[in-house]
Amino acid sequence: MYDEILELLGKKNYRELKALLSQMNEADIASILEEVPEEALPLLYRLLPKELASEVFVNMESDAQEILIRAFSDTELREVIDELYVDDAVDLIEEMPATVVKRILMHTDPEVRKSINDILKYPEDSAGSLMTIEYVDLKKYMTVDDAFTRIRRTGVDKETIYVCYVTDENRKLLGLVTVKDLLLSDKSKKMFEIMETNVISVNTLEDKELVAEKFQKYDMLAIPVVDQEDRLVGIVTFDDAMDVLQEENTEDIEKMAAITPTDKPYLRMSVFETWKKRIPWLLLLMVSATFTGKIITHFEKALQAQIVLTSFIPMLMDTGGNCGGQSSVTIIRGLSLGDIDYRDIFKVIWKEFRVAFWCGLTLAVANFAKLMLFDKVGLLVSATVCLTMVLTIIFAKLVGSTLPIFAKRIGFDPAVMASPFITTIVDAISLLVYFRVAGIILGI
Amino acid sequence: MYDEILELLGKKNYRELKALLSQMNEADIASILEEVPEEALPLLYRLLPKELASEVFVNMESDAQEILIRAFSDTELREVIDELYVDDAVDLIEEMPATVVKRILMHTDPEVRKSINDILKYPEDSAGSLMTIEYVDLKKYMTVDDAFTRIRRTGVDKETIYVCYVTDENRKLLGLVTVKDLLLSDKSKKMFEIMETNVISVNTLEDKELVAEKFQKYDMLAIPVVDQEDRLVGIVTFDDAMDVLQEENTEDIEKMAAITPTDKPYLRMSVFETWKKRIPWLLLLMVSATFTGKIITHFEKALQAQIVLTSFIPMLMDTGGNCGGQSSVTIIRGLSLGDIDYRDIFKVIWKEFRVAFWCGLTLAVANFAKLMLFDKVGLLVSATVCLTMVLTIIFAKLVGSTLPIFAKRIGFDPAVMASPFITTIVDAISLLVYFRVAGIILGI
Repeated sequence: MYDEILELLGKKNYRELKALLSQMNEADIASILEEVPEEALPLLYRLLPKELASEVFVNMESDAQEILIRAFSDTELREVIDELYVDDAVDLIEEMPATVVKRILMHTDPEVRKSINDILKYPEDSAGSLMTIEYVDLKKYMTVDDAFTRIRRTGVDKETIYVCYVTDENRKLLGLVTVKDLLLSDKSKKMFEIMETNVISVNTLEDKELVAEKFQKYDMLAIPVVDQEDRLVGIVTFDDAMDVLQEENTEDIEKMAAITPTDKPYLRMSVFETWKKRIPWLLLLMVSATFTGKIITHFEKALQAQIVLTSFIPMLMDTGGNCGGQSSVTIIRGLSLGDIDYRDIFKVIWKEFRVAFWCGLTLAVANFAKLMLFDKVGLLVSATVCLTMVLTIIFAKLVGSTLPIFAKRIGFDPAVMASPFITTIVDAISLLVYFRVAGIILGI
Repeated sequence: MYDEILELLGKKNYRELKALLSQMNEADIASILEEVPEEALPLLYRLLPKELASEVFVNMESDAQEILIRAFSDTELREVIDELYVDDAVDLIEEMPATVVKRILMHTDPEVRKSINDILKYPEDSAGSLMTIEYVDLKKYMTVDDAFTRIRRTGVDKETIYVCYVTDENRKLLGLVTVKDLLLSDKSKKMFEIMETNVISVNTLEDKELVAEKFQKYDMLAIPVVDQEDRLVGIVTFDDAMDVLQEENTEDIEKMAAITPTDKPYLRMSVFETWKKRIPWLLLLMVSATFTGKIITHFEKALQAQIVLTSFIPMLMDTGGNCGGQSSVTIIRGLSLGDIDYRDIFKVIWKEFRVAFWCGLTLAVANFAKLMLFDKVGLLVSATVCLTMVLTIIFAKLVGSTLPIFAKRIGFDPAVMASPFITTIVDAISLLVYFRVAGIILGI
């Protein structure tokens, strides 16, 4: 599709280009426009039918949006902004440089500008910063017919009309009515008769992660956002919640790999930014790893007496790290999905202990056979390595599974307690166990 | 809340219990019922108002559902099943043991039973296995008024009414109409005049991961599922897509930690099952790690000449592993979000090379200072360790970033190319570099 569009563009066949684009989905057009050469972007955008154009705009990445805004005439800019929902306008403003923001706000009508400024005041990552104010509000004594009239009159600009909120004169949230309820109810019924009063809501200041979790749990189309006085100030719709869910997952995955999370896509980050997200963890982990080196130095003599022991260090350390990593990642994910909580800690320990025992035994037996038959290192060395392996795996799995739970308990992010961190701890443990076992079995 | 309910139950205060439960949300009641002692579960369930009861049932985990079904009378069972959407009924049947399935199907009416069987025929993880057949279908020449009449008549049992599908006499999908379109259109307009004909759909046999991705991309409430002949057979709604998204994320995270994915929650897996998901990877990685050991054996003499070199092995290996892990996980996530694809490989390599260089330099400088000032190991050993560090990090980041892209290119799952796998490769590389550098600088 992309090649076809570039070809038509090269041939200046704007007519066919226009016909082709107008049949495509806005999200697809947006991905294509992000890829075309910068100078072709405004031209292609102007070929789009007006309504489609602003939908495409919302779907684009901020870089492409900025190019377009800089190319827009004032009229074009105003047209796009008029079509934006307030939450999209806020997203746009958050991404643009100051000069562009100024120009955008200049062409926004005062009422919307006020709403944008209100939302910008909420802390980043709060429900307030995520919400839109375009919802349908109804009153308690309206009939079903009144409600439909109101939806028909105001619905065109609302982000969703399928869930409507019933508020009192102080904007306090009383209940919700879905369009399904309205369609299936008698036309003369009043809102207070049909509304659902047991409404799940979030507070403006709550973390957006919590918003996403509530969507997951309660299968809602939209969630109302209320302020400290329980007044309805906005809603968050499921599509935004889905985006938050993906962002949160990305953040967790990055933390598990010892990277400071960011919401910028990889290819848009500069080398310096990428370096900055990675280097603190690498430094920290490097310093911790030097302690492992200290242990080796401490047992230098033992190693010199039995130099063959050195060659099993990488295998023991890696296996310990892998075992610990498996447990920690499983538990971190369980904690974040709500499958596991602090009360389950003894269940977790008991289970990991048994799994570790069986994993350790399996690996030790496989290893023992190999050491005796292929490496021919003798019974005592083989026994040393295999016993170390079983003990290391048990330690690794217990550390890996309990640390994330404790981290969460004391208010830390459990995702940080993943493989890299656990590996560093387990490395030291495995070496200590190794030399201790070697001391006992080999007498060194 | 949980304690309050248990207390009322202990006091046999069923009246207050009933009042309390009837005000709660179905998802919350379900979580509580999953926790109560098994013998109390049917009793509590029977206190729920009938409509709420079946919603609570759908929200429960399969273990609790099974306990209930075994306790149900035939009438109770029929009541619950009548209220289930077909996709939920399919989920239920997939989780239950054969005897329970038999009893469920016996109390399902023949038409629904046929639909259930049809859906069960689709491959696991396909769009077909995920869909429900309860959608509203409209005809091309219906007016807006006709459409509303149809929605009012059939809508109560539909999973969503907000998106309706227009089909021809052969059930071919012609277009879609939202309730918003219907509400905002003139009552005498015909469906073919207002319907959106550019419909995003999925095929029954497509992977459910693709379904979730389309939801992400196109922000839809529901996606139509069509068969090989383009006939509409069902829909998937956004809440199911959100669940798939979470499952796919969990799977990716598990694969990255060298665990075979499963969709069972951690605490429900037996020790044997957990062992089975973890041991193959541990075995594979252990065998690979023995090659690293071989490298050490090969350079035994060099190590004996400079035993201090041994003590830096863990730090070099760990740092290499962490650097490779950071890159691989970043790229894997980028691939799965669609931010990165094969065409970007040179951009990725060039960027990772620069990031690696700066990360390597930072760590080497910090390390050099420490080696010279604290460890006092001498200039030549310090230089050996630090040069190895820079080179290892560059190798690690290049291997970590390119392997997932190649894996995806040849149709492998890139998530497998995460930290544990990369660590094993990078360990070997770092030791080879270490001994080569030591050979040149220290002449051993």
